[in-house]
Amino acid sequence: MEYMLNKTGAPPGTIVYSGKDTTEKVRITLIEYNETQFIEKNFYDFSECLESVDPNMVKWINVDGIHKVELIEAIGKHYNIHPLTLEDIVNTNQRSKFEDYDSYVVSIMKMIYYDGEIRSEQLSVILMEGLVISFQEIDGGDAFDLIRNRIRQGKGRIRKVGADYLAYALLDAVVDCYFTILEKFGDRIELLEEELMEEPTKETLKQLHHMKREMIFLRKAVWPMRELINNLERSETELIKPSTDIYLRDLHDHAVRVIDTVETFRDLLSGMMDIYLSSVSNRMNEVMKVLTIITTIFVPVTFIVGVYGMNFDFMPELHSKWGYPLTWFVIIITIGSLLIYFRRKKWM
Amino acid sequence: MEYMLNKTGAPPGTIVYSGKDTTEKVRITLIEYNETQFIEKNFYDFSECLESVDPNMVKWINVDGIHKVELIEAIGKHYNIHPLTLEDIVNTNQRSKFEDYDSYVVSIMKMIYYDGEIRSEQLSVILMEGLVISFQEIDGGDAFDLIRNRIRQGKGRIRKVGADYLAYALLDAVVDCYFTILEKFGDRIELLEEELMEEPTKETLKQLHHMKREMIFLRKAVWPMRELINNLERSETELIKPSTDIYLRDLHDHAVRVIDTVETFRDLLSGMMDIYLSSVSNRMNEVMKVLTIITTIFVPVTFIVGVYGMNFDFMPELHSKWGYPLTWFVIIITIGSLLIYFRRKKWM
Amino acid sequence: MEYMLNKTGAPPGTIVYSGKDTTEKVRITLIEYNETQFIEKNFYDFSECLESVDPNMVKWINVDGIHKVELIEAIGKHYNIHPLTLEDIVNTNQRSKFEDYDSYVVSIMKMIYYDGEIRSEQLSVILMEGLVISFQEIDGGDAFDLIRNRIRQGKGRIRKVGADYLAYALLDAVVDCYFTILEKFGDRIELLEEELMEEPTKETLKQLHHMKREMIFLRKAVWPMRELINNLERSETELIKPSTDIYLRDLHDHAVRVIDTVETFRDLLSGMMDIYLSSVSNRMNEVMKVLTIITTIFVPVTFIVGVYGMNFDFMPELHSKWGYPLTWFVIIITIGSLLIYFRRKKWM
Amino acid sequence: MEYMLNKTGAPPGTIVYSGKDTTEKVRITLIEYNETQFIEKNFYDFSECLESVDPNMVKWINVDGIHKVELIEAIGKHYNIHPLTLEDIVNTNQRSKFEDYDSYVVSIMKMIYYDGEIRSEQLSVILMEGLVISFQEIDGGDAFDLIRNRIRQGKGRIRKVGADYLAYALLDAVVDCYFTILEKFGDRIELLEEELMEEPTKETLKQLHHMKREMIFLRKAVWPMRELINNLERSETELIKPSTDIYLRDLHDHAVRVIDTVETFRDLLSGMMDIYLSSVSNRMNEVMKVLTIITTIFVPVTFIVGVYGMNFDFMPELHSKWGYPLTWFVIIITIGSLLIYFRRKKWM
Amino acid sequence: MEYMLNKTGAPPGTIVYSGKDTTEKVRITLIEYNETQFIEKNFYDFSECLESVDPNMVKWINVDGIHKVELIEAIGKHYNIHPLTLEDIVNTNQRSKFEDYDSYVVSIMKMIYYDGEIRSEQLSVILMEGLVISFQEIDGGDAFDLIRNRIRQGKGRIRKVGADYLAYALLDAVVDCYFTILEKFGDRIELLEEELMEEPTKETLKQLHHMKREMIFLRKAVWPMRELINNLERSETELIKPSTDIYLRDLHDHAVRVIDTVETFRDLLSGMMDIYLSSVSNRMNEVMKVLTIITTIFVPVTFIVGVYGMNFDFMPELHSKWGYPLTWFVIIITIGSLLIYFRRKKWM
Repeated sequence: MEYMLNKTGAPPGTIVYSGKDTTEKVRITLIEYNETQFIEKNFYDFSECLESVDPNMVKWINVDGIHKVELIEAIGKHYNIHPLTLEDIVNTNQRSKFEDYDSYVVSIMKMIYYDGEIRSEQLSVILMEGLVISFQEIDGGDAFDLIRNRIRQGKGRIRKVGADYLAYALLDAVVDCYFTILEKFGDRIELLEEELMEEPTKETLKQLHHMKREMIFLRKAVWPMRELINNLERSETELIKPSTDIYLRDLHDHAVRVIDTVETFRDLLSGMMDIYLSSVSNRMNEVMKVLTIITTIFVPVTFIVGVYGMNFDFMPELHSKWGYPLTWFVIIITIGSLLIYFRRKKWM
Repeated sequence: MEYMLNKTGAPPGTIVYSGKDTTEKVRITLIEYNETQFIEKNFYDFSECLESVDPNMVKWINVDGIHKVELIEAIGKHYNIHPLTLEDIVNTNQRSKFEDYDSYVVSIMKMIYYDGEIRSEQLSVILMEGLVISFQEIDGGDAFDLIRNRIRQGKGRIRKVGADYLAYALLDAVVDCYFTILEKFGDRIELLEEELMEEPTKETLKQLHHMKREMIFLRKAVWPMRELINNLERSETELIKPSTDIYLRDLHDHAVRVIDTVETFRDLLSGMMDIYLSSVSNRMNEVMKVLTIITTIFVPVTFIVGVYGMNFDFMPELHSKWGYPLTWFVIIITIGSLLIYFRRKKWM
Repeated sequence: MEYMLNKTGAPPGTIVYSGKDTTEKVRITLIEYNETQFIEKNFYDFSECLESVDPNMVKWINVDGIHKVELIEAIGKHYNIHPLTLEDIVNTNQRSKFEDYDSYVVSIMKMIYYDGEIRSEQLSVILMEGLVISFQEIDGGDAFDLIRNRIRQGKGRIRKVGADYLAYALLDAVVDCYFTILEKFGDRIELLEEELMEEPTKETLKQLHHMKREMIFLRKAVWPMRELINNLERSETELIKPSTDIYLRDLHDHAVRVIDTVETFRDLLSGMMDIYLSSVSNRMNEVMKVLTIITTIFVPVTFIVGVYGMNFDFMPELHSKWGYPLTWFVIIITIGSLLIYFRRKKWM
Repeated sequence: MEYMLNKTGAPPGTIVYSGKDTTEKVRITLIEYNETQFIEKNFYDFSECLESVDPNMVKWINVDGIHKVELIEAIGKHYNIHPLTLEDIVNTNQRSKFEDYDSYVVSIMKMIYYDGEIRSEQLSVILMEGLVISFQEIDGGDAFDLIRNRIRQGKGRIRKVGADYLAYALLDAVVDCYFTILEKFGDRIELLEEELMEEPTKETLKQLHHMKREMIFLRKAVWPMRELINNLERSETELIKPSTDIYLRDLHDHAVRVIDTVETFRDLLSGMMDIYLSSVSNRMNEVMKVLTIITTIFVPVTFIVGVYGMNFDFMPELHSKWGYPLTWFVIIITIGSLLIYFRRKKWM
Repeated sequence: MEYMLNKTGAPPGTIVYSGKDTTEKVRITLIEYNETQFIEKNFYDFSECLESVDPNMVKWINVDGIHKVELIEAIGKHYNIHPLTLEDIVNTNQRSKFEDYDSYVVSIMKMIYYDGEIRSEQLSVILMEGLVISFQEIDGGDAFDLIRNRIRQGKGRIRKVGADYLAYALLDAVVDCYFTILEKFGDRIELLEEELMEEPTKETLKQLHHMKREMIFLRKAVWPMRELINNLERSETELIKPSTDIYLRDLHDHAVRVIDTVETFRDLLSGMMDIYLSSVSNRMNEVMKVLTIITTIFVPVTFIVGVYGMNFDFMPELHSKWGYPLTWFVIIITIGSLLIYFRRKKWM
């Protein structure tokens, strides 16, 4: 799990990629549409892409990879994007945030997915007049296929409305990802809970701790996401039409619900730690009882037999005919009364 | 206990039912009234229902079941309800919320009931001019029979005032349900507390944990409920007349009281976990003491008798006449002084 | 300790008494005064009381008992009090609150007293032009005798000023009750603390838990009380003259001080739980040490004497003259070095 | 440590001293100064003091003792001070507060000092046009000697500016006292921490608890102090000149720093409780290990020697020449392998 | 780790150095630049420095050492800086803060660095028209070399813009230091976590505690830093041009991210304490089990062999031929069934 990496000391406005090293080619996907038309093309060169752009359609430029700083700079230059925005896009250690630069608004957030453990990828969405540019860290496997299909098929509202609705749809898809992860997480919690109730092992503890850490990680991603959406909703940008406002409110509700769920899970995990500890101490208690019962029963009678193992010349009991059976009698009485005592104490 | 389910990826405004599968018929109940008249009818078809509607009376349309999406859509179309509202109504994983769409206001909330464990059902209440539409997840057993009776009998204020008061009455009934549940919960807490004080078992711990989880669940339902009522109270909609304001304030007080009680129960349950743990450790202490007393008394004297069980040729004590009685004397002195020591330490 | 009782489902505005059943007569006490005159009378009938009322004097009508709903309704009708207010007065499960109904303001609060454990009684104070009506749950033993005496004797400010000052004085007396209880509580905490430091028993734990619960109960009563006073202070009602404002500010300070003290006590009680647990574990430690020392000293030497209790034909040591004394020597050396070891470890 | 004492039931505005009983004479110190002149006199009578007052100089009247209520009333009457203010001055259970009464402003706070444990004394500072009146609970040993010296010597700013700066200087001295106490406290924490790390005893726990209580006490004093300064800073009184504002801001910063330190100490003390508990459980672990090792080594071999202590007629081993040495061999092997096992488990 | 030191009782506005004693010479570095020119000079005398100042260039005066109070006073006098500002600069126990004095704004903060443990140094930055004055506690090893290089080389934005951007750049460098420290801290946490999971020792606990303390220390430094930046961002000073605003917003985001990380680390460290405790109790459990198994197996069979070690004259078993082998059989059966019992209990 990455907590934070940083480009200490670089001057502000310096566009330095801070993610993992990679030499993959960066794919640019251009989708243009209006109510009647639809075009979808892939490029590996921004200038080619520009030639295909039709000013009369809503445009969505999706950039799959942010390690090619020159490309980001070229896009930034063409669309007049502030260097600080570009810096934020390529710095993968960004906190989710929303910024309003009059001519465009930018939302930077963490898109999460699950492959064995929870991972995150940075997504930046720039909304301009009639244009959405989205930057993803990694090519492939994004959450936007459903949106693409709806655009392709012209189903629903999306082709009838502007770029602001597209930007909203992207954010909505990201929030939906959180739900998917949380659903899986909920299942894991339920499994772990059963395990804890029945037979907790050291492995259970490890897993519990692991999930707690993931929850800390998720919380750190989720709260700024809500803030972002909140700021977006309250911003007075003219790029977002009033008709989209209600969708943003809905999105905000979703984000709040994600946070609610994260907090609920946190509470559940804390409670589970308590159960673990009390079940461990319960078991210790049981072990102690067995130890105590055995010791308490056999130590006194061992003393008794020890007495008659002594070699004194003058021990009258040793020569009595009833010495041996009486000793057994005493032993059995002792053990019997101890057993009754333990039963009463509910130790057995 | 359900935490969250979701319709990941579906486009916003898509009306998809997300509750449990069911093929039951959906019953529509129309209640119309004014100060002098009262009509109550059941339908299984919305168009039939529409024919019966009298524009001069206050109307309450109650829909028992939200799995028939087409019906919801038909109602939505007829009354000009925004697709997002309809989506929220059928999505049973909704967070309680209040929305003001000028021509109508909608409150979506969780109605809770108890059958072995706490369960919840989603209720949506739409208030329009002279009309209340309520959508329930499940047919039967709702909390509204009292309200229906008051309308039927024309008792109290309800027949004299408008639809806004009806909507308030529905919400008030929902909040009252919370009180009923909490009352039961309070009894269970008291029982559990006595059990804990007297003789906690593993079962007590399980139950304690179960109640803690239910409390987490309740909290998650209760806080948004209060928020909803708060927003409703503060909303500037003209659908709610000033004369109803004071009732909303009262409703708000009730919601706050529910939250107070939930938080008090949470505190009590936390305190009970502490008692459980300290009573377990107390018991362990007791077990330890028994073990220690027995061991401490018998181990030294077993050593003494061991000494005289040795077979050395030259052990003068063995041949003394007083050897055996003196050994017993030493043993009794040892045991006696240990007992006095333990008494002083208050271990016995 | 009562947490909450409720009149689920009754229509709002229905005046239903929710306290304990009682058939006692309800006493109405009328006190009228101005700077020069003073009248005090008892009635068991409201209409009789009304005849005695003098419009030119400040009037205080105190109703001792709220189980006679008809009486409350009669008062409500005469003085034009809203049904919701009346409902709140007789519903003893009310949260403390302040409401401003233009023609009157009403404060409903919990008056606490101590008889073995902390109990509460509901008090409602209605302030109108020249009139204060107070409703108490139980007849007798209230906190207002000092105020009555001051009115009777005409001492201090109270006879010179209006009804608003009288209402303030009642609230101040209620807050003073909290101080009295907290003072007693503080003494109990100090006693308990000493007990904990010296010799905690299971009884101490029970008491600690009991006090924690009482604290939860007190907190639940105190915070709304402060809210009430805050709302009262900020309200813009004309019933309260500017000259009384400064007294309300003082009252607010007192309420804050009560809360401060409650929170301090809560902190102290939490800390005491910690001490209890660590003192229990300390004692366990001590028990363990005794066990370990005894076992560690006697188990090895018991082994040694066991060796020479064996019956082998060929054991040269047994026949040596020095065998027995040497064995004792080894035993004493062993015990001695173990004792030194334990001293070094600071176990003894 | 006093938590709270109270004058329950006394009518508001009644000036009743609530501190410890004392019959000491009350000393009044009058200091008058302007840029060029300086007068300092002691009185035991207020009317004498009044005669010495020069209207053209800044006056500081310091009253050492508040148990002589008549004196306080005389001062109050002369300077037109509201009875509630006087009540607050003599009631030593006051919460720190600031009040603005147009013609004067009053700050009441706790001055703390250390003599074995942390104690507090109430200080009230009234600022009027050209006059500061300060009331201290106890004569002698206050924190103001530095201020007096600066006035006497005419050093620094103080003689050049008005009474508002003097009032500020008094408050600043009080906040400085908190720093002194906290400094000492920090040293004690560091000592305790070392003790905890090395060798915690029951005494350490007691001390830790004692310091936690003192911290609770300090917090209760410090937060209202900050509130006071905050209210003072924001008040719109004309008694405080704009040139003094910047000093108040600085004072506010100091108060925040005191709170920061208190909170840091609280965190440290909580962490120390954790260390204590884990060091106790660590030690218990160590004790357990010793017990287990000794028992596990000697119990099995004691069994072995027990076997050959039996007196059966037919035990062939007893008559073999190698029986005894072989038994020793088995004993040594057993002990040896157990030792190796423990080493592997890292118990030794 | 220093928590707090103080110059109790000194009059406000007294400029007293409160850091560590030192007699080093104080170096003054003057850097002047505009888009085309660049001058850098070192002085040990302020008046010399003043002669070199060019009014047409942006000036950065960096003072390395604040123990020479006369120098600070000379600078203060020349540039008309308020005595309280000067006091704050030399008082190294300052809380981070931002103050706006019309003609200049001052930011005082903690610059942290790591040499074995986390240390802090106070930095004060005064921004005036065309001038930045920075005061550092210690000469050498600051975080500003990157900024100096950028000025020297004329790279980036810095030479083209004014003094406000320079002040921002200094603050940004300070925040970057926090990131560097946190990165190192993150690595240490990960190492510690692995240690905890595998084999926690007493040393691990000590380290864990040490890191917790450092975190408390860092938090105390970080939160006021954010407040400072927040105040700076919101201040309405005309010294900061609108074009710099966006950089301040970015700086604010960075500060929030630092806090996020600190809080995440705090959560992680708390969770680690839990793991430590549960791993200790797990291990104790294991020890207990070994003890119990050994005791439970050998104590009963030792009793058996004790029985036949008794010396009674009449013990028929002793003379039977099968006595000895049967005893062995009973012993083996006993041990065997106990082993099976333990296996079933999963203790082995």
